[in-house]
Amino acid sequence: MNFNAGPATLPLPALERARAELLDFAGTGISVMEHSHRGKEYEKVHDEAIALLRELCAVPDDHEVLFLQGGASMQFALVPMNFLQPGASADYVVTGAWSEKAHSEGAAWASVAGARVRVAASTREGGYVRVASPAEAKLDDKAAYVHFTSNETIHGVQYVDLPRFGGAPQICDASSDFLWRTIDVSGLSLLYAGAQKNIGPSGVLVVVARREFLERGRRDLPKILQYHVHAEARSLLNTPPTFAIYLVRNVLDWLKAGGGLDAIERRNRAKARELYAAIDGEGGFYRCPVEGPSRSMMNAVFRLPSEELEQQFVAEAKKNAMIGLKGHRSVGGIRVSLYNAVEPEWVAALASFMKDFAKRRG
Amino acid sequence: MNFNAGPATLPLPALERARAELLDFAGTGISVMEHSHRGKEYEKVHDEAIALLRELCAVPDDHEVLFLQGGASMQFALVPMNFLQPGASADYVVTGAWSEKAHSEGAAWASVAGARVRVAASTREGGYVRVASPAEAKLDDKAAYVHFTSNETIHGVQYVDLPRFGGAPQICDASSDFLWRTIDVSGLSLLYAGAQKNIGPSGVLVVVARREFLERGRRDLPKILQYHVHAEARSLLNTPPTFAIYLVRNVLDWLKAGGGLDAIERRNRAKARELYAAIDGEGGFYRCPVEGPSRSMMNAVFRLPSEELEQQFVAEAKKNAMIGLKGHRSVGGIRVSLYNAVEPEWVAALASFMKDFAKRRG
Repeated sequence: MNFNAGPATLPLPALERARAELLDFAGTGISVMEHSHRGKEYEKVHDEAIALLRELCAVPDDHEVLFLQGGASMQFALVPMNFLQPGASADYVVTGAWSEKAHSEGAAWASVAGARVRVAASTREGGYVRVASPAEAKLDDKAAYVHFTSNETIHGVQYVDLPRFGGAPQICDASSDFLWRTIDVSGLSLLYAGAQKNIGPSGVLVVVARREFLERGRRDLPKILQYHVHAEARSLLNTPPTFAIYLVRNVLDWLKAGGGLDAIERRNRAKARELYAAIDGEGGFYRCPVEGPSRSMMNAVFRLPSEELEQQFVAEAKKNAMIGLKGHRSVGGIRVSLYNAVEPEWVAALASFMKDFAKRRG
Repeated sequence: MNFNAGPATLPLPALERARAELLDFAGTGISVMEHSHRGKEYEKVHDEAIALLRELCAVPDDHEVLFLQGGASMQFALVPMNFLQPGASADYVVTGAWSEKAHSEGAAWASVAGARVRVAASTREGGYVRVASPAEAKLDDKAAYVHFTSNETIHGVQYVDLPRFGGAPQICDASSDFLWRTIDVSGLSLLYAGAQKNIGPSGVLVVVARREFLERGRRDLPKILQYHVHAEARSLLNTPPTFAIYLVRNVLDWLKAGGGLDAIERRNRAKARELYAAIDGEGGFYRCPVEGPSRSMMNAVFRLPSEELEQQFVAEAKKNAMIGLKGHRSVGGIRVSLYNAVEPEWVAALASFMKDFAKRRG
């Protein structure tokens, strides 16, 4: 029972398929990772992964789907490099550790490029226990873009509905918030998501972006840094992480076979409901610091009465075959990640363990 | 028999090991790719991969070994971004398609940053049929660095001995030239190599660089773009491509078990000898355009009397289970990649096929 925050647990059928054909892909006698990225065998996988993402997320025709490397952290740099022209300004909505980092990397680039970044809203005061509403954000109508993080993996704070921050192009880091429910990407100029939560293994990242927005990006940078160049090359500008994309394809196939995003959303919401009920049901023994409407369906965080008890909780859970429950080292406490491949039975087992632990130690 | 130029064939034992433990890594009951990159199970693999690279290449203590994402193409941008300060100039030695790209990406960044790049030497005239010697290069003693490509995968041109271009810091793209023989990295300020030739699957890249040189890099860029930040974080600044690094570890283990770089170099030189003998031994039916001393031990390129014959050659070879022989689309002809995991028996079979083909069609 793996509750890791990412790299996270993967669907067993996707891994079993990889194992079955690891040495002999599609009857070719060699591994998919030994195929040329320009050969028809790999290209079929590549195109299928893109097509499945388009289908599952109902990506409109005027949006591109890209596979890039470097994780969300690389996007923290590439977004301002492409879209923050000298003299321009961009807005950041800061609701946790990850949007803080996105802002700080954006600020570094702004100072190199002679541009500006603003914090349009921040919920840092109070310790990131809620999202920031569009109403409270001080938005710059002329901003090159507004950047927000739809789910904060470390602080367990999530926008339950995708927000809209004014009229500037909307850029969303959806790393831990992608593919677990239906999503309307049509209003976003650019969404990015590291794979290692709901999409696949680490080492690959998905971008869904409006074509016209990508084409507006800066064109004097080295080509490898320009989104529109990757889009024109169908993410085959240089050698992609072929095996990671192959695994993404396997995961998407599993997702589709299980009924797509509607079905997985029902399953995920039920898991979250059960877990938060367990947190709230022990008379305050477990305390989730996050305000109700901002509680994340993907990463539930909570505290116990003492750090000692938290350590015991993690250790005893591990003895019961539950791993990945330690909160991020920057905030402490407990964190339970509830990504797609986390089975409802695991959550039930954890809830039952929590009840028992509270009874014995409360 | 897979002669792909990259992603290339991988050692069977490295893949078999991956298959055996794909669903249960080190008795943990989950895949290595489902482990946290901050957990002790993955960290052991990570540290082992670095230690093996250090041992196999005798990396000196004052050099760092890094794992990064984005391939060599991303290094084409990161090298000038880190080391080409505004007002400074860098030298490029251009001996084929890849060093051409490195120069062109460097030029793009130079123009953004208010710096300059120079072509210190080029063998483009004549079609990249030889390397450029340090003696013929017009070097700038004050250059921020000299960049060269030690093996040109597309043009089949290689520096048989690692060159030294004057007194500026030496930066080497060794993507298709790394780990196939003993190498003295101590004189290089920075070497980089995409994994998908001799090191592992695509999706991960190795940097070997002098610590003091990395620390001299620009510090106002977004952190994710700074080499020294990755070095200080032991390549764990953000989530690394854990499964790709795990496979690198498996490949390095195989390399060490087989006797290390000395042993693989003997094997590789014998393979190249046999192949070039086959090329040269058919009275001019096969023509290698590359001058003798510059012929690559990793990627042998040659032409047949007509393009039609080249197509027949590739098709017939495929019927004989030999794949990956088509030259790069930009230059045509035939290319045979002879990376570490290419078995001597495959080269013998190819040589014999070449003899037979020449007899029938010559």
